[in-house]
Amino acid sequence: MDRTLIKDLKGTIGSQVKISGFIHAIRDQGGIKFLQLRDVSGTVQIVILKSEKEVFDAVKDLSLESVLEIHGLVKEEKQAPGGFEVQALEMKVLSAAEPELPIPVVEEKGGEETEMTKRLDWRWLDLRKPSKSNIFPVWTALEEGFREYFSKAGFIQIYTPSLMNTASETGSDVFEVKYFERKAYLAQSPQFYKQMAMSAGMERVFMVGPVFRAEPSFTTRHLTEFTGWDFEVSYIGGHFDIMSMEEDMLISGFKNVKEKIGLDIEVPSKPFPKITLKEAKKLLAEKGVKSEKVHDLSPEEERTLCEIIKEKDNSDFVFVTDYPIEARPFYHMRHEDDRTLTKSFDLLYKGVEVTTGAQREHRFEVLKEQAVEKGMDIATLEDYMNFFRYGCPPHGGAGIGPARIIMRLLELPTVKEATFLPRDVKRLTP
Amino acid sequence: MDRTLIKDLKGTIGSQVKISGFIHAIRDQGGIKFLQLRDVSGTVQIVILKSEKEVFDAVKDLSLESVLEIHGLVKEEKQAPGGFEVQALEMKVLSAAEPELPIPVVEEKGGEETEMTKRLDWRWLDLRKPSKSNIFPVWTALEEGFREYFSKAGFIQIYTPSLMNTASETGSDVFEVKYFERKAYLAQSPQFYKQMAMSAGMERVFMVGPVFRAEPSFTTRHLTEFTGWDFEVSYIGGHFDIMSMEEDMLISGFKNVKEKIGLDIEVPSKPFPKITLKEAKKLLAEKGVKSEKVHDLSPEEERTLCEIIKEKDNSDFVFVTDYPIEARPFYHMRHEDDRTLTKSFDLLYKGVEVTTGAQREHRFEVLKEQAVEKGMDIATLEDYMNFFRYGCPPHGGAGIGPARIIMRLLELPTVKEATFLPRDVKRLTP
Repeated sequence: MDRTLIKDLKGTIGSQVKISGFIHAIRDQGGIKFLQLRDVSGTVQIVILKSEKEVFDAVKDLSLESVLEIHGLVKEEKQAPGGFEVQALEMKVLSAAEPELPIPVVEEKGGEETEMTKRLDWRWLDLRKPSKSNIFPVWTALEEGFREYFSKAGFIQIYTPSLMNTASETGSDVFEVKYFERKAYLAQSPQFYKQMAMSAGMERVFMVGPVFRAEPSFTTRHLTEFTGWDFEVSYIGGHFDIMSMEEDMLISGFKNVKEKIGLDIEVPSKPFPKITLKEAKKLLAEKGVKSEKVHDLSPEEERTLCEIIKEKDNSDFVFVTDYPIEARPFYHMRHEDDRTLTKSFDLLYKGVEVTTGAQREHRFEVLKEQAVEKGMDIATLEDYMNFFRYGCPPHGGAGIGPARIIMRLLELPTVKEATFLPRDVKRLTP
Repeated sequence: MDRTLIKDLKGTIGSQVKISGFIHAIRDQGGIKFLQLRDVSGTVQIVILKSEKEVFDAVKDLSLESVLEIHGLVKEEKQAPGGFEVQALEMKVLSAAEPELPIPVVEEKGGEETEMTKRLDWRWLDLRKPSKSNIFPVWTALEEGFREYFSKAGFIQIYTPSLMNTASETGSDVFEVKYFERKAYLAQSPQFYKQMAMSAGMERVFMVGPVFRAEPSFTTRHLTEFTGWDFEVSYIGGHFDIMSMEEDMLISGFKNVKEKIGLDIEVPSKPFPKITLKEAKKLLAEKGVKSEKVHDLSPEEERTLCEIIKEKDNSDFVFVTDYPIEARPFYHMRHEDDRTLTKSFDLLYKGVEVTTGAQREHRFEVLKEQAVEKGMDIATLEDYMNFFRYGCPPHGGAGIGPARIIMRLLELPTVKEATFLPRDVKRLTP
């Protein structure tokens, strides 16, 4: 007999079924016993009558979180959650759990949740909680929506390497790898590689993969390894083209989450509000928020700016554009009419930065000048600079942190909760 | 004016267009000049008449592979490739290439191709060749098809970390990372993590990401970092369920490549031929192929077996099943009626192994016994063993090497050609 998922039982009342799952709860009332069984799709009440002697006697040996296969009859039962239950006829223990769980899967009502460090030590038990079961289905649907946009818009997917011979971009905060007889480094960003794809004539690429940051950060939004989404496009007119594409991408993702998961979320609409950093600073000053850095936004400023925009434009998203050169890497293109400003943007979502993007400087001589001006070591940049020597189209792109989007979308307290197996300064397990 | 892709020019005869791309060829006939312009979609002939003085005079300063934007008139021209050409009216150099290219983009007819090491040093120039332009579009379409299958079958996507505190699986051939004050290792496989997802109750997961092998291998099918595709499924009846899913996944991928790229490939049909290792050895012996290893297939045996199956069943794919325990890791489930054989399989495609899969042992006590028997250090396996202590459904899955599939599908000489930026013992650049 094929297995039926718990969510599909409702349509099978009166039939015999096979279901499988974890024991979510056991209630022994002497003459009648109840189990709650949990699979990926939900939970259901199992009733075990004395008349089914073999199953009935076996219940006393069961422990919570053991995995069962149950053959039974689906029956209407007004008092059961959902209006039906499964009367067990046969039961097989597929995997017996030890009686003492290191952390509870079913939290006591009104009780305190286990401390996060402990929960992450036992991540697979923590993720069994029904309250956490939608995190990765939502991520899956979000990415599916992203990909639908990229597919329709004719993008090519590439996978860029994590192992590089020099530190990418800044040269600080990189992990060093013992690579046979020499050293390698883990990529902090696929930035250079996706620009290389532009030089290779690929015109529109997207990618997804790990990025590594050896920062000793202890915030709710930093990890040492996280999944990054990136795209890069040639023959653009400027950074506004990239923002427009990101809008389409996000709308496609949010729409898919809403439709596929049935989550009651707001799908943003195009165009998102856009504001220059200079204007943002002005609005923040009016609200009395102190500016810690002249050229960038602090976490507090990001939060407040999002509140202002939410009130003004009723949008959860806002693009902050035209950051000054001090806040941006050497390869960002500058405005022709004001060479102190870059053709760049950040995207904020519900108070947190989720994207950085820009048009890049593709002219070899200008790029070299900008690198020298920033005090970069041109020798270590040689491979990168070479991408621009033999023809390279004008291009730009963006890097997106999906875990931060999921964190805010599901109102999780930290990116760790949005990450399958988070890695930070202290954590390399499980 | 919006840019028109070269592949769409045919429908615009008689109109003015804007096109952009690399200079593929220059032909100066004195009174009339021709360029060939190349974008992501194809190449087109540009004619420059003396009457367009400004453009005409500019041509002499152009070098191959420079990037141009051209405004022009699309005109029928029987002698031009495709029956039309673009008469240039305006021209803008978006990026000037240095006149000497380190490797040619347009190979001389009948000439020898540049040596691979040199081509990989200048990978972005090598990838400009029209002959290589379909590698990543094919990969994109293949993966899109895979994902379509996973989406329909209700799989959840996860991203598993590359950084781990102990060496995964075998403990040999891993890269060591300096991780703040201690050591970390790069994951050789997401195996343990995807099994953890089963223990977390996720039931059906798929993933894609880098895997790292510190093997000093110098073959046409090994890299130190490559993209792996993985999936894992709970509540299976055995390894044949996993093979059936992989068949559906591959059919969906191949179909999408055929439909989307228009490539003339054979879409496999279900079920693929299946043969036990024992039967395979017998067939090979009949063909006079020597068996180097009793418990596994050598590259030569893989090639010959595929030839035999192609002849017998007209299939490019063949599953080889039921490897003996000597050839398989401790966590593979064994046959109840013959504990020397595992519920495992490899998938061969056109002579090369592209997948390894199995049902896993999910029973804590049995798993522990098998680990001890294999001489594993249980202490370093503690995190992994814990996945099975608190209930874990029966499960199995497979790991797939997409670059090997692409290599064979497009008849490329090595996986390096199928990889955007290959990494091997000697290569960490560009």
